[in-house]
Amino acid sequence: MPENKTLPDNWGRWGAEDELGTLNLITDEVRARAAREVRDGRAVSLALPIDPTPALSGPFAPAAGPLSPVQQVMLHTGIPVATADLVTITNHHPRSTHLDALSHQIREDGQVYPGRPATEVVTPAGVQHGGSTPFAAGILTRGVFLDLAADGPLPSAHPITAADFEAAEGRENVRLESGDALVVRCGWSMTPDPERPMPGITLDAVRWMHERGVSLYLGDMGDAHPPLEDEHPGALHRVALLNLAMPLVDATAVGELATVCAELGRYCFLLSIAPPRIHGLTGVPVNPQAVF
Amino acid sequence: MPENKTLPDNWGRWGAEDELGTLNLITDEVRARAAREVRDGRAVSLALPIDPTPALSGPFAPAAGPLSPVQQVMLHTGIPVATADLVTITNHHPRSTHLDALSHQIREDGQVYPGRPATEVVTPAGVQHGGSTPFAAGILTRGVFLDLAADGPLPSAHPITAADFEAAEGRENVRLESGDALVVRCGWSMTPDPERPMPGITLDAVRWMHERGVSLYLGDMGDAHPPLEDEHPGALHRVALLNLAMPLVDATAVGELATVCAELGRYCFLLSIAPPRIHGLTGVPVNPQAVF
Amino acid sequence: MPENKTLPDNWGRWGAEDELGTLNLITDEVRARAAREVRDGRAVSLALPIDPTPALSGPFAPAAGPLSPVQQVMLHTGIPVATADLVTITNHHPRSTHLDALSHQIREDGQVYPGRPATEVVTPAGVQHGGSTPFAAGILTRGVFLDLAADGPLPSAHPITAADFEAAEGRENVRLESGDALVVRCGWSMTPDPERPMPGITLDAVRWMHERGVSLYLGDMGDAHPPLEDEHPGALHRVALLNLAMPLVDATAVGELATVCAELGRYCFLLSIAPPRIHGLTGVPVNPQAVF
Amino acid sequence: MPENKTLPDNWGRWGAEDELGTLNLITDEVRARAAREVRDGRAVSLALPIDPTPALSGPFAPAAGPLSPVQQVMLHTGIPVATADLVTITNHHPRSTHLDALSHQIREDGQVYPGRPATEVVTPAGVQHGGSTPFAAGILTRGVFLDLAADGPLPSAHPITAADFEAAEGRENVRLESGDALVVRCGWSMTPDPERPMPGITLDAVRWMHERGVSLYLGDMGDAHPPLEDEHPGALHRVALLNLAMPLVDATAVGELATVCAELGRYCFLLSIAPPRIHGLTGVPVNPQAVF
Repeated sequence: MPENKTLPDNWGRWGAEDELGTLNLITDEVRARAAREVRDGRAVSLALPIDPTPALSGPFAPAAGPLSPVQQVMLHTGIPVATADLVTITNHHPRSTHLDALSHQIREDGQVYPGRPATEVVTPAGVQHGGSTPFAAGILTRGVFLDLAADGPLPSAHPITAADFEAAEGRENVRLESGDALVVRCGWSMTPDPERPMPGITLDAVRWMHERGVSLYLGDMGDAHPPLEDEHPGALHRVALLNLAMPLVDATAVGELATVCAELGRYCFLLSIAPPRIHGLTGVPVNPQAVF
Repeated sequence: MPENKTLPDNWGRWGAEDELGTLNLITDEVRARAAREVRDGRAVSLALPIDPTPALSGPFAPAAGPLSPVQQVMLHTGIPVATADLVTITNHHPRSTHLDALSHQIREDGQVYPGRPATEVVTPAGVQHGGSTPFAAGILTRGVFLDLAADGPLPSAHPITAADFEAAEGRENVRLESGDALVVRCGWSMTPDPERPMPGITLDAVRWMHERGVSLYLGDMGDAHPPLEDEHPGALHRVALLNLAMPLVDATAVGELATVCAELGRYCFLLSIAPPRIHGLTGVPVNPQAVF
Repeated sequence: MPENKTLPDNWGRWGAEDELGTLNLITDEVRARAAREVRDGRAVSLALPIDPTPALSGPFAPAAGPLSPVQQVMLHTGIPVATADLVTITNHHPRSTHLDALSHQIREDGQVYPGRPATEVVTPAGVQHGGSTPFAAGILTRGVFLDLAADGPLPSAHPITAADFEAAEGRENVRLESGDALVVRCGWSMTPDPERPMPGITLDAVRWMHERGVSLYLGDMGDAHPPLEDEHPGALHRVALLNLAMPLVDATAVGELATVCAELGRYCFLLSIAPPRIHGLTGVPVNPQAVF
Repeated sequence: MPENKTLPDNWGRWGAEDELGTLNLITDEVRARAAREVRDGRAVSLALPIDPTPALSGPFAPAAGPLSPVQQVMLHTGIPVATADLVTITNHHPRSTHLDALSHQIREDGQVYPGRPATEVVTPAGVQHGGSTPFAAGILTRGVFLDLAADGPLPSAHPITAADFEAAEGRENVRLESGDALVVRCGWSMTPDPERPMPGITLDAVRWMHERGVSLYLGDMGDAHPPLEDEHPGALHRVALLNLAMPLVDATAVGELATVCAELGRYCFLLSIAPPRIHGLTGVPVNPQAVF
């Protein structure tokens, strides 16, 4: 299957060694713009809370229900005055707020961004290029919240387009600039419901993000499952993440953010993303902070 | 063994249900003070980078060396266009920057803060009180960096006291106020070296933190291993964390911070700590961000 | 609490270094007796089948139900011509057939068999004495099946006594000799049912096992949960395993064995137990084989 | 790439649903032949002993060296009178004695035995056909030990052929019959040594196994790494396991067996393999027992 030449694409834009993708758009000027949004130090978490499942389901712990993204083991420390534990985390889980690395997606021709064979990059010992390493130290930029659910959740199977984003900009009196992170509320969760098809991001919306210079996408929803009937289903992962090299935060929690933005009448903030500083992953749990 | 009545103690100060400990000192005013430190959006990570070990050491991955704090498993996703992985994290590991929860330490009488039996609180299904839950959404305050190693690493076995902190305040022309986080550089790592006993925090230093109202301690070093010859060995964990209910960030990376502070001539910043939002843990990996 | 002097006890019987407990009763003569039971090479498994749960419950695998004793991770091998996986096993799980090591139980005075402090034996790096090591190479003896459920499951809360065992011996025309393994069917599973209290082994039954010289106990049931109203609740684990140092196989599958024994009219067989040869565990999954 | 028509092949021999492969050769008559080898109940383990690595490498356990095939976590049980643990096992590990399932290997055309697409059979939720399930209840047959190292280890890079097997038969005065398991000693371990290329099984040896009707292969060595210069490198895994559907036990321990066989002057025995009874795996740890 030939790659569609008309799809937006950033492969090669920042060189053959690049691992940052659209994070290259976050310049010193963008960071200074973010800094100017900080006034009283109020912070809002954009992560879903996670109750871990005990990995042990035998006689010493309750039998577990459906698996959490996190499993916890309480350890025998051998000393009565200290406690300790281990956690095992499923990096790509629909109930865990996580950042997708660029090498999470592979092109049909077997290549990963910005043009390397997946067979060399994706190894049993981790991702050698375009993994979590380039953003392990943290990401800071301006966040702009576009609330598509200000009047209630989007309709089932609604195809999200540029028009939805621009309508929100108009309502909120903001404008997304190059290097900003886009934070979206659809009023849905990422858990599929067979009765009610999800809304989702269309290729039209991805083209708009590309034109505006979005550095990072965060949303309570992204690609619809099942896919929308669209010219390019799964456009957020298959075009924005893969072709544009735009990192995504899946399963973002935006309810408290919506409340605070409405209360303050402000839809821009400093956005800080500081994952555990682990290299070589395909994705990593994050707790994005919106600071006002 | 009777508890030493003269040790500083916060048990009961914020009530019988409290789980925040000294984080209660972070008021709106403290947060606003932190916000005023943000000028150009430059961020510095205070976390050590971690190269995970592949959990699989068989024919498909290299044999592992000494264990990393993080083990990674690359997954068979069943589809050729996506990659995924799992990580297992040792929460208390001397090469992992992590936040100690209040219930990480138990008093000799079997109680955890603020006076509950460890047998009820610490269960095979996780920590029921004083675990990671109260800071899972994130912590934001002003950070003050006291660089005790500006002229080189502290001497071996040096007992760190209030005088060291106040000397640094004088050199840097800063003053640590109630609610601030204290970030310390000793110029040492937490990996024990049998040849060179570590420096460490003394009870005198902990008393000073208590008087100043430190909300949170971060340091490249904390308690010395082997313990210092001190009136109360292990004072950071056994008095500050346990008696004062002051959360600690073990194994903080402060090298880049020292460089940036010296370059800017500024030793205060907005400190944001946003761990993966997981409840019920005894400790959690963090990537503290100092924002200037 | 003083130890009950009248309870049967093997501490010291085989010396201060012993790790075999009642497996010492399996002499060459006992093994030869076992060998004589082998006629046509028919083998019956006494292990419950286990369907592992995928550890990954995200977008690439079905969400898991209640946790299995075994979790499986299918690995990315990096080569298209080979598959591989990892398993994580909960050693003491009521739906996993497993052998309890002697150090699985600790006396109220803090000692493990044959009189060592648990604080020295049970460490974060595994069990240093009386763990899985002494039987890791395998156990072979004669098995005797006493079918207490030949006429249907035992009544709810039935206290199993020596009389039950001797009645079965009479029905089956067998006699359990010193060194034999005792295999018991009660017609119950080890999963507690709040509506129907389980039957269970009494101290009287344990005394009988001691007098007969049982080397090893295997049963579909053992100690009742909730405990029987008995002179010594939990006698199988707290007296047979702990005081007598008699290894136990919890959650033994005996349905097929009952069918085969009835069909052949034979209730004795060669019993082979060959766990994965792993040292230092508190318990280990096993698949006991009854060979006729 | 067309499959080589002249390679020995059992695909289709036992039907389109078969999962047993050459285990189909173990008839009642073969089992009775195995039973006749049992005389005094002496058992020898053919598994390598495994010292597990503590998964926890932090302040409460020693830092780990090179990873073991097994990692152990000692658990906080919440009660002072019982201990428990978890193990994580790498199923295909060169220092772990394990049984390879038929679906461990995939043909270049993407099919697994006996002609199913790997994309359907090998899923993130385990192996759906030709995994550990068909031998989870246990395998019993006659074992024949061919000691190729009776006069010392095979020479480096020695290509093992039918002639080696027949010479051993002659020395030992045995003959391998249809349905028997073949147990081989080369005097080497499976850990590659760059200085000394391993000996290995050739296609000629595999053809001989096929003609004789070997049901199962166990050896201290199998395929050489690096591969022999052979007409078909890796013939044990790529022809015997994959084309013939002959399960393999990798990393078999044969030292004690060699001693016992020489002492008894007997090279045939009852072989019992009873893995943990876990379904759907690509491989499983085993502790084969040779019973005399």
